Amino acid sequence: MRKASALAAIALVASPLTAQSVDRTEVGRIVDEGVNRSEVMLTVQHLADHIGPRLTNSPGMRAAEDWTASKFRDWGLKNVHKEGFDFGRGWWIERSSARMINPRPITLTAIPIAWTPATAGRISAPVVVAPMSEERHFARYHGQLAGKIVLVTLPNDGSEPTDPAFKRLSGDDLSKLDVYEQPKYDPEASDRRMKRLEYSAKLDAFLKAEGAVAYATMSPRDGKLVHGAGYLFGTGETQQVPGVEIAAEDYRRLARLAKQGPAPVVELENVVHFVDTDTRAYNIIADIPGSDPSGAYVMAGGHLDSWAAGDGAVDNGAGVAMVMEAARILQTMGVKPKRTIRFVLWAGEEQGLLGSMDYVEKHIAARARKPGTPETGLARFYGWANRWPITRQADYGKLSAYFNIDNGSGKLRGIYAENNAAVVPIFRDWFAPFNAMGAGSVAIRKTGGTDHVFFSAVGIPAFQFIQDPLDYGSRLHHTSIDTFDHIKAADMRQGAVILASFLLNAANADKPLPRLPFPTEPGVTDPFAWPDPNDLD
Amino acid sequence: MRKASALAAIALVASPLTAQSVDRTEVGRIVDEGVNRSEVMLTVQHLADHIGPRLTNSPGMRAAEDWTASKFRDWGLKNVHKEGFDFGRGWWIERSSARMINPRPITLTAIPIAWTPATAGRISAPVVVAPMSEERHFARYHGQLAGKIVLVTLPNDGSEPTDPAFKRLSGDDLSKLDVYEQPKYDPEASDRRMKRLEYSAKLDAFLKAEGAVAYATMSPRDGKLVHGAGYLFGTGETQQVPGVEIAAEDYRRLARLAKQGPAPVVELENVVHFVDTDTRAYNIIADIPGSDPSGAYVMAGGHLDSWAAGDGAVDNGAGVAMVMEAARILQTMGVKPKRTIRFVLWAGEEQGLLGSMDYVEKHIAARARKPGTPETGLARFYGWANRWPITRQADYGKLSAYFNIDNGSGKLRGIYAENNAAVVPIFRDWFAPFNAMGAGSVAIRKTGGTDHVFFSAVGIPAFQFIQDPLDYGSRLHHTSIDTFDHIKAADMRQGAVILASFLLNAANADKPLPRLPFPTEPGVTDPFAWPDPNDLD
Repeated sequence: MRKASALAAIALVASPLTAQSVDRTEVGRIVDEGVNRSEVMLTVQHLADHIGPRLTNSPGMRAAEDWTASKFRDWGLKNVHKEGFDFGRGWWIERSSARMINPRPITLTAIPIAWTPATAGRISAPVVVAPMSEERHFARYHGQLAGKIVLVTLPNDGSEPTDPAFKRLSGDDLSKLDVYEQPKYDPEASDRRMKRLEYSAKLDAFLKAEGAVAYATMSPRDGKLVHGAGYLFGTGETQQVPGVEIAAEDYRRLARLAKQGPAPVVELENVVHFVDTDTRAYNIIADIPGSDPSGAYVMAGGHLDSWAAGDGAVDNGAGVAMVMEAARILQTMGVKPKRTIRFVLWAGEEQGLLGSMDYVEKHIAARARKPGTPETGLARFYGWANRWPITRQADYGKLSAYFNIDNGSGKLRGIYAENNAAVVPIFRDWFAPFNAMGAGSVAIRKTGGTDHVFFSAVGIPAFQFIQDPLDYGSRLHHTSIDTFDHIKAADMRQGAVILASFLLNAANADKPLPRLPFPTEPGVTDPFAWPDPNDLD
Repeated sequence: MRKASALAAIALVASPLTAQSVDRTEVGRIVDEGVNRSEVMLTVQHLADHIGPRLTNSPGMRAAEDWTASKFRDWGLKNVHKEGFDFGRGWWIERSSARMINPRPITLTAIPIAWTPATAGRISAPVVVAPMSEERHFARYHGQLAGKIVLVTLPNDGSEPTDPAFKRLSGDDLSKLDVYEQPKYDPEASDRRMKRLEYSAKLDAFLKAEGAVAYATMSPRDGKLVHGAGYLFGTGETQQVPGVEIAAEDYRRLARLAKQGPAPVVELENVVHFVDTDTRAYNIIADIPGSDPSGAYVMAGGHLDSWAAGDGAVDNGAGVAMVMEAARILQTMGVKPKRTIRFVLWAGEEQGLLGSMDYVEKHIAARARKPGTPETGLARFYGWANRWPITRQADYGKLSAYFNIDNGSGKLRGIYAENNAAVVPIFRDWFAPFNAMGAGSVAIRKTGGTDHVFFSAVGIPAFQFIQDPLDYGSRLHHTSIDTFDHIKAADMRQGAVILASFLLNAANADKPLPRLPFPTEPGVTDPFAWPDPNDLD
């Protein structure tokens, strides 16, 4: 194929940025396999429909761990294994129901709050509205909660959604993302998070002491969507009082009726189960081995776990399926990369990025232990990103790029460069064959909230893609309608193809992706601020 | 108050269109009462929260009939009475639940279809997907439905809502409504509707004969919203097979799993009840008597009945509350109108405008009886609007204006003039004091679908207001989230105030509102059309 080679040579000359040895001829093979023989929708459908919700350590998550590992093996990937870390209790919902039975019968839309105990069979009790969000609020309701179902959220007004639920990014939207933001250092952020957890435990103890039979929160979204998020999952720290999240419309009705009196009576039945046979959670790892004797590797990942309300389809069955499909495409092509290409499916993401943090701690870089840091549950990672110094682990120099997928099921439109200006022209070049598929924006800024952040925090080039939001944030994220039917096949195929191409480029590049300087403790960013007077005592 | 009289005289001169003797000084009193001492939100909240859904002839509707009549009496209105008409069976939901129990447990969002029977306790059965929409489809599934829950809707794809759920009308939106449309005569429309009903009865008979244990439809809306509409409510014509509408996400998942096999097993429990103690439905009527000895009157109305999925808050508790609040405002002001002002709350609107049609037939104008027309249920009114000639009844000349409220809970932005060009300048003038409240557009065109249409069809000046849609059509209309918390107090007050003002203007106008010519059978509107070859046999 002399002509093709000649064209490739011209392309290299014409594109002086391509110092990373991009082999454009592989792009056509990736697209062919990923578009004409795609399995990405079958993968996500199996996860969402057949396995369903995958709360970390639940039976669903165990089934997903086994199924994804066996898929990787079936496709021929190597070194397929699970890597465990201490997590906490498993928990799952067998059935639940909630009804108002007085002053009139209505079926309520509700979901048990994760890791709260079962009700004592089908219970019925009057509700009491007792909005509490800080410990100092407890005293107001002392002596008033015995035998009651306690509504702890302050009811708000109905929403007025004036933005479309379903959205694709315009060129203007994309260009607004490409803005460098100077860093803000907020060492208190993780303290606030821990205080929130501590508050939940204190609320549970208060409700238990007062004799409440159950408590209810209001869904943060309108429209009968429920979520059921809960965070007290550690062995020995799960709650004692059954909890339920009630749809906003149903919660507000209960609160209005309670205010006018007599208090409505609600019948509640949470049939939920804990599983304590194995308190470790597992990341799933699979490799396409590289030829480089140094053990260098590149990696893609997404979290396999989900919440329990929906089927974990767009969050994050979609990301998992794109990662697995990229693996299948590259494996099917028989690529022999220079660097190993590793695929990893994380556990415990929804409880605080726990799976990826464990991987970083074990393999990439450890951070100083803060005295008094708890060793269990979410609290284990308390203040992790603000501990100094960072100590390199065995893989620190080997992992040259990490790509994460966890922004829903929309097609890839670009990538966040995490303030790493040197990768911008490289990624633009890697996107070039995919511009006509809608992908190409490289936005300098950082993005947070998912499994690339701890890699990035220790200086690994680790990235999250820009995806069309579709209806992810507006109505699917963590809700009861996170189901397969909201996923678009064309978007999923595009995502898998581009991810495969990025991985192959990163694996075969002459040089590893450029890194930012090794992180050290930042200086005081606002030397002119006064201390908060509340902190002076 | 000579000065005021002088100003009024100037206003009359300055506004030559005001041939209807508008007394502007009453507007201030109406606004004062309707804004500063409003009860409109208490009224709709009582209907929605305390009484709840009001399916015609259900216990909820009976409670609403009694409560609204007593409210009218408490406020001092006269001639408060119920006017009954033959309707059919009462029906209500005590409780219902639906779960997939195989291949994994999920609580499904579902609602019993109105007027379908209870399940035989808590049943469980495999589903079978058998999309049927015409009688000729039945044969495909003969012998395959015994012992099954039959999914009769063809599953579609998920929606991509690119319009905002919540919307107020812009000036541009309003101007687009003001377009005269030449009439289209479609004598087959009511036949199609009847065929749909006949099909439902045939489907029920087929499912019964095949031994299906229940059937399920898919919600026509995404996002876990359900409706539960059903139309076979006549005595002796209700269905034999229990029916349930399943949320689109849950239905599609069942259908996908069934296609891949083995068929999912669903557990279903519909605890519903029929009430046959009184098969008549009732319109509620209340008057502020006028001084005119001719018995002339003007009227406002809205339907009191609702579907069973939500609380009937925006459809049409909101319209009822605006009508009742207009009555309260005018009664409290002690108005002594020339013409009687009548307030009427309709029953049976959701099943085909049955309450208003009965009123029109009894009091306004009868239409020729079509040979073979059924005498029960919805079928009673089969082809009503296309029967000729029209015969005037006793009130034909007395009712000079009818105003209906049934476009949700949004504030009034204007009115549809129903092709009655002569009323356009009159209504513009009546709106003049309310322009700053956002109301003033008079759109020439007709609007359909609610209780003014049969008045309009026989030549009575009968109108429906233009209202801000808010999230009525997008997510509230007939759904499980038609609840009080989606209603805005400021909108409701504005609507009641303007309605009161329109009624007082119409009641005190020197002359009745101009009428269109008395309706006669239209000519052939398309003399060049070929007959449909399917109709030739």
